[in-house]
Amino acid sequence: MKRRAIVLAALFVATIVSALCYIFLEGNTNEPYTIKNGMIYFAEPERAEGQTSMLGFAAEPIDTVRVGIIGIGMRGRGPLKRMAYIDGVEIVAICDLHQENLDKGQARLAKYGMPRADEYVGEETWKEVCQRKDINLIYIATDWNTHTPMAVYAMEQGKHVAIEVPAAMSVKECWQLVDTSERTRKHCMMLENCVYDHFELTTLNMAQQGLFGEIIHAEGAYIHALNQFWDSYDNNWRLKFNQTHRGDVYATHGLGPVCFALNIHRGDRMTHLVSMDTNSWVGKEFAKKSLGTEEFANGDHTSTLIRTHKGKTIELQHNVYTPRPYSRLYQLTGTKGFANKYPVEGILLEREAMTESGVVPNHEDLSSHKFLPKEAFDALMAKYQHPIQKKLLENAKKVGGHGGMDFIMDYRLIYCLRNGLPLDQDVYDAAEWSCIGELTAVSIENNSMPVAFPDFTRGEWDKIDGLKFAE
Amino acid sequence: MKRRAIVLAALFVATIVSALCYIFLEGNTNEPYTIKNGMIYFAEPERAEGQTSMLGFAAEPIDTVRVGIIGIGMRGRGPLKRMAYIDGVEIVAICDLHQENLDKGQARLAKYGMPRADEYVGEETWKEVCQRKDINLIYIATDWNTHTPMAVYAMEQGKHVAIEVPAAMSVKECWQLVDTSERTRKHCMMLENCVYDHFELTTLNMAQQGLFGEIIHAEGAYIHALNQFWDSYDNNWRLKFNQTHRGDVYATHGLGPVCFALNIHRGDRMTHLVSMDTNSWVGKEFAKKSLGTEEFANGDHTSTLIRTHKGKTIELQHNVYTPRPYSRLYQLTGTKGFANKYPVEGILLEREAMTESGVVPNHEDLSSHKFLPKEAFDALMAKYQHPIQKKLLENAKKVGGHGGMDFIMDYRLIYCLRNGLPLDQDVYDAAEWSCIGELTAVSIENNSMPVAFPDFTRGEWDKIDGLKFAE
Repeated sequence: MKRRAIVLAALFVATIVSALCYIFLEGNTNEPYTIKNGMIYFAEPERAEGQTSMLGFAAEPIDTVRVGIIGIGMRGRGPLKRMAYIDGVEIVAICDLHQENLDKGQARLAKYGMPRADEYVGEETWKEVCQRKDINLIYIATDWNTHTPMAVYAMEQGKHVAIEVPAAMSVKECWQLVDTSERTRKHCMMLENCVYDHFELTTLNMAQQGLFGEIIHAEGAYIHALNQFWDSYDNNWRLKFNQTHRGDVYATHGLGPVCFALNIHRGDRMTHLVSMDTNSWVGKEFAKKSLGTEEFANGDHTSTLIRTHKGKTIELQHNVYTPRPYSRLYQLTGTKGFANKYPVEGILLEREAMTESGVVPNHEDLSSHKFLPKEAFDALMAKYQHPIQKKLLENAKKVGGHGGMDFIMDYRLIYCLRNGLPLDQDVYDAAEWSCIGELTAVSIENNSMPVAFPDFTRGEWDKIDGLKFAE
Repeated sequence: MKRRAIVLAALFVATIVSALCYIFLEGNTNEPYTIKNGMIYFAEPERAEGQTSMLGFAAEPIDTVRVGIIGIGMRGRGPLKRMAYIDGVEIVAICDLHQENLDKGQARLAKYGMPRADEYVGEETWKEVCQRKDINLIYIATDWNTHTPMAVYAMEQGKHVAIEVPAAMSVKECWQLVDTSERTRKHCMMLENCVYDHFELTTLNMAQQGLFGEIIHAEGAYIHALNQFWDSYDNNWRLKFNQTHRGDVYATHGLGPVCFALNIHRGDRMTHLVSMDTNSWVGKEFAKKSLGTEEFANGDHTSTLIRTHKGKTIELQHNVYTPRPYSRLYQLTGTKGFANKYPVEGILLEREAMTESGVVPNHEDLSSHKFLPKEAFDALMAKYQHPIQKKLLENAKKVGGHGGMDFIMDYRLIYCLRNGLPLDQDVYDAAEWSCIGELTAVSIENNSMPVAFPDFTRGEWDKIDGLKFAE
């Protein structure tokens, strides 16, 4: 009996210790994730009955796309010019918190020969825009926090939506976009313009034609010292967001183009990431002056490594604080070639790949350790100009706006809607590229522990064979 | 009694389950590491009685440094030329597996006006070199696997050692170097030449004078397509090593210069890392042809993120396979400025820092988003040339060898030994930079789980205030 009591006591203590140890190792159970074998997992909600995939989804053609734009500030004024150069589109409503922005917007419409739009001013009027029966597309260019709530509401009112980057600020919001789009059968496109930039489109074309061999590693970044720009954001919303959020909160410009090149959810998928930040020095100092705060969550420099199902890697960087040349990195490392955009555009191809490309008769200058000489680079870039860009570049350059990429983006959006085609960027792109914010924050808050990507396609990431722009 | 039995049984089951869960979560107990709260830890052996730190260690001055060189292959032939331009040094013995290499070595000595050295040929003769009473310094330029065993033996024979990179191939070997050096009171310097390269030394000087503000993030790499070189390694040792090892197996060229700039173990220390590799495509294909193997452990591209105690980060990359321009990255991101070496050298300084530098009277051209214009860059590089380089550059350029950095390295080694000064790179540098191989492999094999750095200084990483080159 006595012996049994000792065994009992020993087991009791062991159980308590093990249970505590288990709880400790498994992390905070209040979080939206769980930890298992040293990997963090977010829940993947099952698809509700009646919902089906939006992969390859095409809506009925819309003869004239009638647009309501919410947010006529830094990014929302761009389309007021660009849409003037696109057929079959009307801007019927503009909405903002401030009448001043609407006035500027109307002036812009007038300047580019478009009719005045209906005005909506104030906190809640965006809902009225979404409710209008004569609108097909809601174009959201507001602060980050309102992107998903507005997009969800708009889709529920039967509208297609286009959302500035990032489309969502948490994994939960990513699922809201996916589920609402699947349920309502409305397009939900994030307005990731950088996939349409010249070097990115051209090298994507090269990649799709196999010039780089298998692309095994890619890099993207948002490195842009915002010191002069912080105060331009209404009520300092962007600085305030960064003040309270660690992680790569603005990943999509860097990630979008490389996901296109790697055919993410079109044959491969991102499986997990690890992220690491520096402390905050510059951000903290700026926020102290600007917001009067002592703490600043977002590290000055945040780095992230992502692995894919096929064993490829992506590196992301985020730094909007320290003085550095603007850079989105954009780098593709292939088994047969290499492309690099910042700080200098350069391409390197193996001799064999260079022969296949057919643009340089004399190979003596080529080396597998050096970028192509200028002449060969120029010839290659000309030969592999992307068909979409070839078709549009002249028009795009006239319009301006980030070297044409914004125009191509708007053009493609309207073109695909008018022709009943799948959009270039689907709701899964929006979710995958936007979830980086929370996934990196959680990794960082757990000493860079790996975090598994939710599969927003729910197992259908290999159903489509490679990225295509519908024509 | 019955109830007590049920409780007993329940607790028993709970204990077993928890114990299994604990074991599962804690990982392989056969490994040289343990996993705790999602972080991998290597054991840190206590310092043995009688051993003391080698931080700041200076040996008795040696009037004439008498050198025995083991390995007269790809890297071992360099010093046979360079030492001819350095005072107070004699090469008294050369040792190699192959008589052919010794013949080439003797020819080189003769060419540069140095006397013939004693020859040692064969597998075990290096021990005889280490045993000679008339030698002060053993210079090891053999294959990676023999570096630590030879260095340990040489120190035990009372010799200072200089070891090609990496100095050690495992954490265990790193501790062997540290403990042997501490016990024998002999220098153990890794021959990391890249810390002496022109841009690295100059920007280190700028960094130490505060031009970049606080350096918060730094990058280094070894990106060098070795396709043409693999066969030059005796019996294919390098390819064979990579064939069986994942991880960043050649990190020191990238890591050394940034550790110097960040004052690692001279006020800060690397606390943990995460690493991620791609699958092997190019390496595997090459090894199939060359070694007849089907598997290849080392990923084509390996990326690593390191965090320091002060909240700074380092990014490392390793890729010796795919066609890319040669790059060691070498990048310093500071709160006031930025320096970048590959693919183009560039520096950016904030206006204030530029004013302090005093080299550019007209600031109108400056921007916190662009590299300095060429004129300002050149003026800055000239003004901040490192004192060591200033003193030696003319001589170094005459000698050649990696643009002078190899010469500066040998010169500093001999100079410090002759003058009884601490060496620029101590045994803790050798251990910290070399342990990356195994730490990254272990991280990768555990889905990029974070790995804690062993503290090779055993708590004394903040005893020295900043890196200094002894004069």
